[in-house]
Amino acid sequence: MDVLIIGTVGYDNVQTPFGKRERALGGSASYASVAASFFAKPSMVAIVGEDFEEKHKQLFLSKQISLHGLKQVPGKTFAWGGKYEFDMNEAKTEFTDLNTLLQFDAHVPEQYRNAKYVFLANTDPVLQLKVIEQLKNPEFIVLDTMNFWIQTKKEDLLKVISKVDVLLLNDGEARMLFNTVNLLQAAQQALKLGPKYVIIKKGEHGALLFSDGKHFSAPGYPLEVIKDPTGCGDCFAGGFIGYLAKHNKVDEPSLRRAIVYGSVIASFNAEDFSLDRMTRLDSSEIEKRFLEMKDIREF
Amino acid sequence: MDVLIIGTVGYDNVQTPFGKRERALGGSASYASVAASFFAKPSMVAIVGEDFEEKHKQLFLSKQISLHGLKQVPGKTFAWGGKYEFDMNEAKTEFTDLNTLLQFDAHVPEQYRNAKYVFLANTDPVLQLKVIEQLKNPEFIVLDTMNFWIQTKKEDLLKVISKVDVLLLNDGEARMLFNTVNLLQAAQQALKLGPKYVIIKKGEHGALLFSDGKHFSAPGYPLEVIKDPTGCGDCFAGGFIGYLAKHNKVDEPSLRRAIVYGSVIASFNAEDFSLDRMTRLDSSEIEKRFLEMKDIREF
Repeated sequence: MDVLIIGTVGYDNVQTPFGKRERALGGSASYASVAASFFAKPSMVAIVGEDFEEKHKQLFLSKQISLHGLKQVPGKTFAWGGKYEFDMNEAKTEFTDLNTLLQFDAHVPEQYRNAKYVFLANTDPVLQLKVIEQLKNPEFIVLDTMNFWIQTKKEDLLKVISKVDVLLLNDGEARMLFNTVNLLQAAQQALKLGPKYVIIKKGEHGALLFSDGKHFSAPGYPLEVIKDPTGCGDCFAGGFIGYLAKHNKVDEPSLRRAIVYGSVIASFNAEDFSLDRMTRLDSSEIEKRFLEMKDIREF
Repeated sequence: MDVLIIGTVGYDNVQTPFGKRERALGGSASYASVAASFFAKPSMVAIVGEDFEEKHKQLFLSKQISLHGLKQVPGKTFAWGGKYEFDMNEAKTEFTDLNTLLQFDAHVPEQYRNAKYVFLANTDPVLQLKVIEQLKNPEFIVLDTMNFWIQTKKEDLLKVISKVDVLLLNDGEARMLFNTVNLLQAAQQALKLGPKYVIIKKGEHGALLFSDGKHFSAPGYPLEVIKDPTGCGDCFAGGFIGYLAKHNKVDEPSLRRAIVYGSVIASFNAEDFSLDRMTRLDSSEIEKRFLEMKDIREF
């Protein structure tokens, strides 16, 4: 089963206590698509500028990612710079050059409009809504967002939330959006807005899945060294929806396994800069770590 | 099997967003002993002043807690005042009146010196060391501490750590003691100091168990309302060692189950002020929540 992924493709300048990279391939759609490619065939909708390098297009193609929705226009590609301090929890943004992202119209090519599994990676909720309107028969839409949209376009965001199946938030965003420190209360409020499931990502502490009356707590994978956490949330989402699309099933046991696979992919991503670890990753490593995740929560 | 518990008994003034209590029964030994009493027979070593109320002694006795080591001396009982802000993560200490705690000599009554299972709750590491020296044949010693001792008596603390089987830390203490944000690295360093096991408590995010080459991640129990988190760490420890003492077995599967039972007891404790929820708690509630914990972890 195919997965449609809408988000950003860009170049990142990233600095962590373990080194720095300039103009490294990044963006939510890049991470999520490569992550999903371990399970399903992703189609990407995003925009880049004329400086977008051929080798990066080839990287996507080598992962069987369909690029009919990757629009290239005059101007520069979206660029972001950030720095992680000692605790690696949150990047301090140093610059955000939207560049050609300002022209992004979220147009979904005709051949992608029948997609059943859709991931709306972090972008303007107005564009996310526009994507949903173009879909003919979506069965499972996963939505990601960030604090910036919660603060600046909350009304539009709430409208998108009401139309999706899964709302993905990190713990800080959940607390901000629902004005409570209690994640269970935040999730219960989120479910009332429409989604069937809410997933709260807690970084090293794992992830929580909430649905009506059900609760699942996925462990975090214990990494000795985290070199660069950029894109982990998108890798989680890509792995999650990719696994579900592969099995074309969204019952509770599948969702739980999908969350653990998402966590596994995200944990690999943090082991190196940019998409470096993801491009070296193979299925046997993923399966091995999935079994480790089973072991570390067994009692 | 009996459990020996050394720590504080005191009176707490606590304020949280859900209310306040004055002169409520508190202290590490109080919480840990009542928690352990659901599984085993605790013996308490602590000190109180002449103002210690008979009803609180009766509360301990009603839980079959042996009080030959609860010394009552002239002067006032140890008292602590703290306030929890909106996020309920950490108490802001408003006062600490050591009072008779200054005379605490950690003398272990003769009839307790054969104890196999021992919990050294948070106190001065010099006293913790003194307790260990009085024990005849301890099989399993669990050590708790706090940031204050890490900052002021690190050398003594490291000496105690080298003599125990389990080191309990919360995530902040682990990071402080080993000067790293990475909990896996902190645990690996802790294991090198001597303990066979290290447990890192992460509050709402659950707890981690580390031993040589093994890792276990226990989920947190999702509480909708946390009224007062005071004593949760001690309840965790009391439940943990109580469960192990009951089954008189400390292999990996028992340790994992003990951690989950500890988390269950701690989660109940947070539901009300002081020891109020603990004194209403019964075994069937504990078993029910233990099964829920299994369910929220299943994939």
